[in-house]
This record gives sequence, structure tokens and C-alpha cells, in this order.
Amino acid sequence: MNREMKDEGRRTKDKNIQGRDRACPCPLKGMKNNRVPSLKFDEKGLIAAIVQDSKSGDVLMIAYMNKESLEITLKEKRTCFYSRSRQTLWRKGESSGHVQKVKSIYYDCDKDALLIKVKQEGVACHTGEWSCFYRRIL
Amino acid sequence: MNREMKDEGRRTKDKNIQGRDRACPCPLKGMKNNRVPSLKFDEKGLIAAIVQDSKSGDVLMIAYMNKESLEITLKEKRTCFYSRSRQTLWRKGESSGHVQKVKSIYYDCDKDALLIKVKQEGVACHTGEWSCFYRRIL
Repeated sequence: MNREMKDEGRRTKDKNIQGRDRACPCPLKGMKNNRVPSLKFDEKGLIAAIVQDSKSGDVLMIAYMNKESLEITLKEKRTCFYSRSRQTLWRKGESSGHVQKVKSIYYDCDKDALLIKVKQEGVACHTGEWSCFYRRIL
Repeated sequence: MNREMKDEGRRTKDKNIQGRDRACPCPLKGMKNNRVPSLKFDEKGLIAAIVQDSKSGDVLMIAYMNKESLEITLKEKRTCFYSRSRQTLWRKGESSGHVQKVKSIYYDCDKDALLIKVKQEGVACHTGEWSCFYRRIL
């Protein structure tokens, strides 16, 4: 997290960055060939994963992945997280059917966060709400 | 983080939840009146804050807030984070001019994450990219 120390960076404004296909050419190989493992997992072996609905752009939830759950996500094209409370892998929707089909995965400039665009089956939140972010402060 | 344990929750699908105005009526009072402090800050006193461009829906970045930086954000209507690396408050754009004007703030079902919708001045990423999530794995 040092983006703030370089906040005077280049100013190439590109509003369509996420809309363009900048995928590295071999995403699964990326894991196998140690291209992606440069991701920074925290001291608990976790990385934050923001889940966004690919169609509406709604931010649905945030959860955490360890390397194994990321590998499963890449392989199965459905989100799999690491449950910090249960300390186990958690395939999203395995009991509810509310699976998230993965459309694309991005990582941030610090390599310590993921943005996962999905097709959400049913709803994302365990409360029955479409998004976990259904309460507003401001 | 126990949403996964209740994944069989109600199924009131509401795709427009973030589009509707479900703001609590007094956001700033919310902080003052101890309505919002039920938010769950982690053992370091931090909460994850996802920043989304209010117009395009692009997820711009993720950063962390402590209670003080959240209060400043609510008061100034510009994002202020806590820099984990520098261990200090960090007003986004204070040196670059790339401020984020806050349009709305949501919190998630677990009360341990924020979604902040902003009008981004310039670009969000210190690299000069519009979004910090400019690299793709899948």
C-alpha cells in the first residue's frame, strides 16, 4: 500500500481500462508458471477480493481468498473464497445455489487486492439482498 | 464474515438496491450519535473501503480507513484513508489534486467493509491509470 506515496504519477486518463481486454494471454498458465504468484497475500495468506456484477457494475461483496481458493476460482470459473470465521474454503453458492460465474479477474497496482467480475446467480448476500452493500451511511 | 454460514437467506432479489435512496436520514449525525460506530473495525482499527466511480461504475481502488479518516471523509465529503505503510492519515489527492468527491457511502451486511461512490478528479491510481485494477489475470 504505497500508492499514496506516488500519487503524483502519470496522468494517462483511461476511463475504459476495465472495458478493454488487457488480459494476460494465459490466465491459468499464469498461476502454474508463477506469473501471478507475485500477488501479495497478507500475513495470514489472504488477499481481498471485490466481487462486481459484470453486467450492472454493482459491487456485490468483498471476501478473502488464499492461494488455493484463487486457484480453484481460476480453474472452476466460479468464485471460491477462504472463510476467515470457519477457516476453510468456501465455494460461494454451494448450499444456496447462488453461484458466481467468473467473467474476468483483475489485480490492483499494489498486487494486494483482486477485482472479480461475475455473473451472479440469484443474489450475492446471505440476507437475500442483491448486494451486501445495501445499507447507506451517506 | 459469516455470510457464508447463512447463505440460504431470504431471496428478495433487488437489483436496484444501490440505485435507490436507502440512506439513513442523518448520515453525519450517524457518526455523532453512535449509530454508525457499530461498524466493525479490525484488530488494527481499520475497515476496508472500496472506491467506485459513481458515474461509470468502475471500481477504482481499495484502501483502508480508521474511524478518524471515516469521520473526516463524512465531514469533508472527500475521501481520506489511513495509510498502513506510513501509519498516518492520507487525504486522497492532497498532493496530486486527484481528489475523490464522495457521493454516497454504503456498508456491507457484516459491517466490516465500506463502498464509497465518488466523483474522481483526474485518475485514481498513482501509476496514472484510471483504476488501480488495470491488470487482468483472467
